[in-house]
Amino acid sequence: MKELSKLMDFRPSIKVVDATLRDGGLVNDFYFPEGFEKALYEANLKAGVDYMEFGYRADKEMFDVNKFGPCKFSSDDFIRSIVGENDTDLKIAIMTDVGRCNYKQDIQEKANSPVDLIRVATYTHQMPGALDMIEDAKNKGYEVSCNIMAISNAQEGDLKVALDLLGKSPVDIIYIVDSYGSLYPEQIARIADLYGEFAAKYGKKLGMHAHDNQKLAFANTIEAAGDGVDYLDATYAAMGRGAGNCAMELLMGFLKNPKFKLHPVIKFVEEYMNPMKEAGVVWGYDLQYLLTGVFNQHPRSAIQFTKDKRKNFSDFFMEVTSQE
Amino acid sequence: MKELSKLMDFRPSIKVVDATLRDGGLVNDFYFPEGFEKALYEANLKAGVDYMEFGYRADKEMFDVNKFGPCKFSSDDFIRSIVGENDTDLKIAIMTDVGRCNYKQDIQEKANSPVDLIRVATYTHQMPGALDMIEDAKNKGYEVSCNIMAISNAQEGDLKVALDLLGKSPVDIIYIVDSYGSLYPEQIARIADLYGEFAAKYGKKLGMHAHDNQKLAFANTIEAAGDGVDYLDATYAAMGRGAGNCAMELLMGFLKNPKFKLHPVIKFVEEYMNPMKEAGVVWGYDLQYLLTGVFNQHPRSAIQFTKDKRKNFSDFFMEVTSQE
Repeated sequence: MKELSKLMDFRPSIKVVDATLRDGGLVNDFYFPEGFEKALYEANLKAGVDYMEFGYRADKEMFDVNKFGPCKFSSDDFIRSIVGENDTDLKIAIMTDVGRCNYKQDIQEKANSPVDLIRVATYTHQMPGALDMIEDAKNKGYEVSCNIMAISNAQEGDLKVALDLLGKSPVDIIYIVDSYGSLYPEQIARIADLYGEFAAKYGKKLGMHAHDNQKLAFANTIEAAGDGVDYLDATYAAMGRGAGNCAMELLMGFLKNPKFKLHPVIKFVEEYMNPMKEAGVVWGYDLQYLLTGVFNQHPRSAIQFTKDKRKNFSDFFMEVTSQE
Repeated sequence: MKELSKLMDFRPSIKVVDATLRDGGLVNDFYFPEGFEKALYEANLKAGVDYMEFGYRADKEMFDVNKFGPCKFSSDDFIRSIVGENDTDLKIAIMTDVGRCNYKQDIQEKANSPVDLIRVATYTHQMPGALDMIEDAKNKGYEVSCNIMAISNAQEGDLKVALDLLGKSPVDIIYIVDSYGSLYPEQIARIADLYGEFAAKYGKKLGMHAHDNQKLAFANTIEAAGDGVDYLDATYAAMGRGAGNCAMELLMGFLKNPKFKLHPVIKFVEEYMNPMKEAGVVWGYDLQYLLTGVFNQHPRSAIQFTKDKRKNFSDFFMEVTSQE
């Protein structure tokens, strides 16, 4: 049971990471309405958010720049067009996927970039690629985090090897990622315990990135916070791939550090997120995501179900459970 | 941390209580579509649900029978019209509010009724009324539970007195009720601990009734289950007052007793709940409920906000926070 004192006090080391442009961009191919990125930046400043993730730094040789909005590539120039020299306490992050980022060429020295944090995303079987990206980013002067994805399908032995490799690497923050939204809070407690052993041994910090397939993204995020995880990902109105993420408005309502403000978040959701939803951009918890979450599968079949505007959930149940 | 063995095994004492007709009825004045109650009864039988709550046994002197559907009053005759003699393992429950039920007259001997469980709902300041209803129901031969409502606003001292009074009463089950949807899992753990002391001392069982204002109804319900609470309320598609309740489909996806089946729940949501929602019946998590939850208030202002189809959440934030 959490200590009573912790229910009223706060831990200054907790950092809130806004992932709206990156995970939310997976829903709309990164085409946000005019002025959205700038208004989000200003809302984050007012709300006391610590990091704002601008998107992926995707390889333009692999992805057609005419088929995605600018946050798919989040070039330094694009980021500067929104934040200028970003003379604020809000740090800027980008994500780089192993195998989808030409990092040696496309990431320049930190001294010449508005970016502060490089977030490397990897599967356990891609660890050597991830480690090379981590070293590259660290050598260029950035803070670096690493997301090990899809851990609900990883063997614990493999995970321990990955954590040990990351421990020995120069990475600063290791993220717990519930890619399939299949984990329960009691499992998050165990995973945070395992990650915490390696974090303590190697002097790393921990982060949490949750998905809302079982309406547990917020619950899992605050479970992780209570277990010593400091970096908490959230998105406005929970916008993110499939069922979405931990909602920024829920997280801000929970956190007790006075620097965090709920009102600017509510205002941004009212003025930007809700109109986008009403205009037809679709994300969020629904039965199809519950099913892929319960059965610990990648949400791609549920995303397709959503795109096809299907409503036959009972048939989808049979499809999901026959994919063994 | 929960024991690893408990994550895979199950506790046979866990009972699932379907509260769709009762808490859901608060959304549509108990006017469910033709055939709904019967189809729900059959879905509950297939899903392995343990108790089905049919509604309130409201006093017809106080409430106009022409202004509410039959589940507001859930007479024995109405229940029999759906379940016949109910020769099944599914038990039937009704709720009686202190001060709103003419129980001496309207509840007959269990031997003549299809009802198995009387659920008495009370605030701490109404305990003498609740105790009289509990004794009346017990003397007539029913199982009896008691919901102490709005505990997030109750003084711990008062709550302990109420729990001690209930301990000494003939009630069978004492419910933890998060009426305002304002409690976090770490608080549920503490409350379950407190209730558990009295339950152990007096040989009572515990129940959990959650609301989804902060998308925590399911998380709080499984937290309670992990803390030894046996009776778990849920509603199909989370239908319930305001933000709604713990979704039956989430709970059935989580519970591991092989008697519980998820597919019939998914099918019922597809065939009955989703069409009802599409027809314009409104419930479920939204920002206005988050705000009354975060600020630990009765959701009535949020329900009015919803009825008025307002979208100015930022203004509502100011209204909620000025109600001190």
